[in-house]
Amino acid sequence: MDIYDSVIELAKRRGFLWNSFEIYGGTAGFYDYGPLGAMLKRRIENIWRDIYVINEGYYEIEVPTIGIEDVFVASGHVGGFSDPLTECVKCHESFRADHLVEDFASNPDTLTPDELSVIIKENNIKCPDCGGELGGVYEFNLMFSTSIGPGSKRIGYLRPETAQGMFVNFPRLLRFYREKLPFGVTQIGKAYRNEISPRQGIIRLREFTQAEAEIFVDPRDKSHPRFDSIRDYALILYSDPAQSSGQAQLEMSLGEAVEQGIIAHQFLAYALAMTQQFLVRVGVSPERLRFRQHMKDEMAHYAIDCWDAEILSDRFGWVEIVGIADRTDYDLKAHSRVSKTDLSVYVEYDEPRVVEKVVVKPDMGKIGPAFKGKAKAVMDALKSMDVKNGFDSKSNQMISIQVDGEQVDIPPDMYEIQQVTETIHGENIVPHVIEPSFGIDRIIYAVLEHAFREEEVQGEDEVHGEDVVKGEDEVQGKDKVKVEDEVQSKDKVKSEDEGRIVLGLKSEVAPVQAAVLPLLTREELIGPAREMESALKKKGVMAAYDDSGTIGRRYRRNDEIGTPYSITVDYDTLEDGTVTIRDRDSMKQVRSPIDTIADTIHDLIYGYTRFEDAGTPIV
Amino acid sequence: MDIYDSVIELAKRRGFLWNSFEIYGGTAGFYDYGPLGAMLKRRIENIWRDIYVINEGYYEIEVPTIGIEDVFVASGHVGGFSDPLTECVKCHESFRADHLVEDFASNPDTLTPDELSVIIKENNIKCPDCGGELGGVYEFNLMFSTSIGPGSKRIGYLRPETAQGMFVNFPRLLRFYREKLPFGVTQIGKAYRNEISPRQGIIRLREFTQAEAEIFVDPRDKSHPRFDSIRDYALILYSDPAQSSGQAQLEMSLGEAVEQGIIAHQFLAYALAMTQQFLVRVGVSPERLRFRQHMKDEMAHYAIDCWDAEILSDRFGWVEIVGIADRTDYDLKAHSRVSKTDLSVYVEYDEPRVVEKVVVKPDMGKIGPAFKGKAKAVMDALKSMDVKNGFDSKSNQMISIQVDGEQVDIPPDMYEIQQVTETIHGENIVPHVIEPSFGIDRIIYAVLEHAFREEEVQGEDEVHGEDVVKGEDEVQGKDKVKVEDEVQSKDKVKSEDEGRIVLGLKSEVAPVQAAVLPLLTREELIGPAREMESALKKKGVMAAYDDSGTIGRRYRRNDEIGTPYSITVDYDTLEDGTVTIRDRDSMKQVRSPIDTIADTIHDLIYGYTRFEDAGTPIV
Repeated sequence: MDIYDSVIELAKRRGFLWNSFEIYGGTAGFYDYGPLGAMLKRRIENIWRDIYVINEGYYEIEVPTIGIEDVFVASGHVGGFSDPLTECVKCHESFRADHLVEDFASNPDTLTPDELSVIIKENNIKCPDCGGELGGVYEFNLMFSTSIGPGSKRIGYLRPETAQGMFVNFPRLLRFYREKLPFGVTQIGKAYRNEISPRQGIIRLREFTQAEAEIFVDPRDKSHPRFDSIRDYALILYSDPAQSSGQAQLEMSLGEAVEQGIIAHQFLAYALAMTQQFLVRVGVSPERLRFRQHMKDEMAHYAIDCWDAEILSDRFGWVEIVGIADRTDYDLKAHSRVSKTDLSVYVEYDEPRVVEKVVVKPDMGKIGPAFKGKAKAVMDALKSMDVKNGFDSKSNQMISIQVDGEQVDIPPDMYEIQQVTETIHGENIVPHVIEPSFGIDRIIYAVLEHAFREEEVQGEDEVHGEDVVKGEDEVQGKDKVKVEDEVQSKDKVKSEDEGRIVLGLKSEVAPVQAAVLPLLTREELIGPAREMESALKKKGVMAAYDDSGTIGRRYRRNDEIGTPYSITVDYDTLEDGTVTIRDRDSMKQVRSPIDTIADTIHDLIYGYTRFEDAGTPIV
Repeated sequence: MDIYDSVIELAKRRGFLWNSFEIYGGTAGFYDYGPLGAMLKRRIENIWRDIYVINEGYYEIEVPTIGIEDVFVASGHVGGFSDPLTECVKCHESFRADHLVEDFASNPDTLTPDELSVIIKENNIKCPDCGGELGGVYEFNLMFSTSIGPGSKRIGYLRPETAQGMFVNFPRLLRFYREKLPFGVTQIGKAYRNEISPRQGIIRLREFTQAEAEIFVDPRDKSHPRFDSIRDYALILYSDPAQSSGQAQLEMSLGEAVEQGIIAHQFLAYALAMTQQFLVRVGVSPERLRFRQHMKDEMAHYAIDCWDAEILSDRFGWVEIVGIADRTDYDLKAHSRVSKTDLSVYVEYDEPRVVEKVVVKPDMGKIGPAFKGKAKAVMDALKSMDVKNGFDSKSNQMISIQVDGEQVDIPPDMYEIQQVTETIHGENIVPHVIEPSFGIDRIIYAVLEHAFREEEVQGEDEVHGEDVVKGEDEVQGKDKVKVEDEVQSKDKVKSEDEGRIVLGLKSEVAPVQAAVLPLLTREELIGPAREMESALKKKGVMAAYDDSGTIGRRYRRNDEIGTPYSITVDYDTLEDGTVTIRDRDSMKQVRSPIDTIADTIHDLIYGYTRFEDAGTPIV
C-alpha cells in the first residue's frame, strides 16, 4: 500500500472522498466529497476567494455550466478539444491511443491519429484488457454534449473550463470596471471533460472544480503595480531552458527571474507568487512544490509564456495542479470574430499624440447637386475611407464606394486628397489575458497527501484528569460501571498509542476545527460540553461533540481527520472553570478558561494566538 | 415599468444579473451572476451553511451534477419527470400544453396528454406566436441527457435536484454518523431542468442552484429535540383546509399548529421555523412571506405533509421559493429496490422486547445421515424459515426448501414446530426523510425585489467636510481645477438628491460592504483611503475604493448596490485621525477613528455594534 492508497483509504473511511454512485457500482471519473471532504473543499475555495476576490479585487462571477455551441466554436473546443481514441474490436473497450504508444514514441501527444494508427500496427500493440485487435485511431471530442429545449435544434455543451464564461462577458465586465485596465474576474465552479478512460482516481475526473482568474491587461504594459511587494519572493523554478539542457530546477527570486527573462513579465511573475502563497497557505508542502515552464512544443500556439505549479506525489510523481498562462488576445479576438462584437477597450494615452493623416476631402458643392438625397451618405463614406489602404493617393482616379448597398462612383473632380495633422488621445486595443487556473480537486488531493503522516507516539499524549477520576471513590451511581470502563481503558489507550495517523492539515482548512470531549458521559460533564459546543458554533467554529469511547480513542479519531484542537471537559472544569485544549501536532496541552473558549479557539485557528499563549501549560 | 422591470434593469446595469451568452444573442432559461450578484449569492449560501451545517450540524456533501441512469430510474425521474408538450406545426415553436389550456380547464396540471389534446382541439387553441395549428400533446422529459465516455453506451443525466445524490450515499452517511438517527446532510449546488419554453426570467431557469437538506428520522418518533426553542415562534400559515374552504392565511405559533394537527409533526414545524429564520436573515420581508400547505391533489403521492415558503412579488404574485416535505421512506426504499442494497438502520429499543415466536426445530439425528455433506445447509435453511408465512404450522406436512439452488423435501419426522420466546433488542427500519429544499436563485430575486425602493431625499444627506475645502484657499497646485470641480458639484448633488434608488440589503449579504471614498482625488487623501481599504480587506470586509465623481454621486452609486456603509476620508482625517461613516438607510453620519475602522465596520456589518455607537454623530 503506497501513500496514495493510504490516503484514499483514510479519505473513504472517514468521509472525505467517496466513489460516486457506489450502491450502483460506481463510474470511473466521478468522486463525491463526503462531509469532511466538502468542508475541506469549501475552506480551500474560500481562502482562494479571500486572496483573489477580496484582496486582489478580482470579483467573482457565476456563469452556467451549460454553454451554447457558438461559445465553443469560437473558443476552438468544438474543433480541437479532443483526444485520440482507439477501440478494441473484440471487447469494445476504448483507450487513449497516445497512452498506448508511450513506449514506442517519444512525444505521443503531438502525433496525428494516422501516425498513431501506424505505430499501433507496426508495433503490434493489442488491447490491454483482452489482447484483442485495436481499431483505427480517431479524434474523440472531450466535451459532454446535450440538447437545450425540446428536439435537438440547439446543441449545448458542458463547459470544459470556466474561462470562456468570463471572456464572453467582457463587454459587461469592462463597463463594471469603468473601462479601465487592468481588471480581473474570477470564477469557481464545475468543469467537465468526457475522458476516454480515466484511471487515476481523483487526479483525472470527468467532472471537476476549477478556480480561474482572467486578468485583462494592457498588452503594452505588463508591469504589475504591486510587483515590489513580491520582488524578493523566491520560488522553485524549472524553466524551459533548464529542462531542455537537462539542468535541475532551482530556487530564484521573482525579481531575478523577470530580469533574466526567465519569466516573461511582472504580471505573470506576480501570478506565480500569488499561487505559491495560496498553495502553501492551504497546506501544500513548499518542499514538494515547483513551477515548471511549458516547453515550446507543449505551449498553446497563442500563448506567450506558461507555467504549471506542480506538486510531488508519491505515486504519480510531479502532478500539475495550477496552470498560469499569458493567453494574449487570442480568446477575445476569437469571440469578437464569431460574435461580431467589439471586444476592445479605449485606452487613453498619457500624452496626446499628433499624427499626420491622409484624408479624402469631398467637394460638397459638386456632390450635393449630383447625389441629392444621398449626398450626405456619400460624403460620410468618403470621409471615413482609409486612404492609405484604399488607393494610390497620388493618382487622379475614380473612387468606388458602397452607399446603402449600392455601388457609387465618384469622379476625381468631386474630391481632393489632403494631408492633415490630427491630435489623437488614445486608441482601441484588445487586452491580453493573464490566466491562473487552479484544479481544486488535485489541490485537495495534494493537501491530503502532504498532510498525511503515520508516527510513533512516545507516551506523552496523556489524558489529563483521568487520575482525578481514578482516585474519586465518591463517583457513584448507575454510571459507575461506565466510569470504571473508561478509566481502565487508559492503559489500553497507551498501548494503542504507539502509533497514530495524523492528518496535519492547516487549522484554517481543517473540516472539524474543534472536538468537544466530555471526559465521561455523565450529566454534569455533558452539560458544560454541550454549552461549549454551542458557543463555538455561534462563533462560526465547526465544533464536533464526541462522547463515544475513551479520550485516547477520541484524540486518535480527531488526529486522523485533522482536527487541530481537542477540548476536554473534566471534573476540574466544574471546580475552576477551565478546560484542557490539546494541540494535534505537538500533543501538548494547556488549561484555558471555558468562558472565553470560543474566542480562544477562533484566534488559534486563524493564527491570532499561539498555542503557548492559549492557557496554562500542563506538564 | 413594474418593480420586476426596475429590479432587473438595476441588476443588469450594476452587475448583479446578466443574460447568459449575451454577445451570442442569449438563450432563454440561463442567467449569469455578475460580480455583485455572485457575491450576494455566495453570502446568502454561506448564511444557509452557517444555519444548517455549522449550527444544525447537517454536514454538507458534494456529489457530481452528472448522474448515471440507474439513479434516476430509481428516483422516478426517467419515468415521470416530464411536462406536456405541444408543438406548432407551422413555426415549430414548442409550448407547455397545460399552460395553453389554463383558461379552459380548472386543473390543467393534472390532465393527461390525451385530455390536453382534446381541450386544445375542442377550444380551437392556436400557436400563441404565429397562430398556426398545434400538434398532439406528448410528455417531454425535463432532464438534460448526455453520454458518459465514448459512444452512447452509458447515458448520463444532469441531476434535476441535488437530493438524489444524498439518498444514494445513505450507507456511507449512516456510518459517518455512527449509525444513529436522526442525522442530516446538506448540499448546495447546480440542478437542471430542460424547460420547454421558459418565459419568466430568473424565476424559471434551466440551470439553477438548490440548497437542500435531507434529514433522516426515525419514523416512529418525529418529535424534535429542540422543538421547545421554536414552540412560540409564529409564522403566517395558509393551510390546506383554509385554502379549500376559502379562508385566509393566518399567523400562528408552531406549538399551536402542531397541537391542532395543522402541521404534521414537530420535525416539519422545526424545519419551517429554520426556513423563516434563514429567509428573514438574508432579507426576505416577513410581511411578504407565508407558508402554504400543499393541497391533497398537488402533494406527491408518497409525502405525508408538504409546505411551500412563498414570497409575494409584484409581478408574479405568490412565488414558491422553498419546499419543505416529509418524503417518508419513499426514496430510500426505491434506491434499495433498484440497487439491491440494504438502506435500513438498526434501531435499538429503549427496553428489550420479549416476543413469542414459532420456529422449525430440525432433528439433527435424522437430517445428518439423510443429507450428509449438505446437512448443515439444510439445517440452516430450516432454522431461518418464516414459519408464520411459510405454511400451516399445525399440519404435519412436507417442507420444500431451496438448498444451493436445489429443491429439497423434508418429511415431517425430521423436524418439529416449536413455540419459543425471544428477547429482541431492536429492529431494522428504513428512516423517513424530512426535506427542506431551497431555490437559491428565486430567493435572490426575492431579496432584490424586497430590498428595492425609490425614495425622496429631504436634503439631509449632507457631504461632511466640503465646507472646509471650500474655504481652503490654500488648496493649490495642478489639482486646483479638479478641486473646484468637485466642490461646485455640491449643489448639483443636492438637486439630484431629490430621489434616490436604494437597495436596502441586509448588511450581512450586501456584496460591497464598505465604500472607501477620498473626498478629493488628491495624494494626501488617497494615501490614507488606500490604507483603510487594505485594512478592511485584511479583516475580510469587501471594501471598494471609489474616487470618481462627487461624494454625492458616489453615495448614490453605493445606495443603488446596497453598500451599507460609506467611509469618507477628508482633511479632518489628516488632522484628527477620524473618518465619516455614513449609514445607507438613515443617511446619518458619525465620525470614527481611522485606526480602528476595520473592526468598527466588521462589527457594524455583523451586528455587534449599533451605528449610533460607532462614532460621534455629525449633526
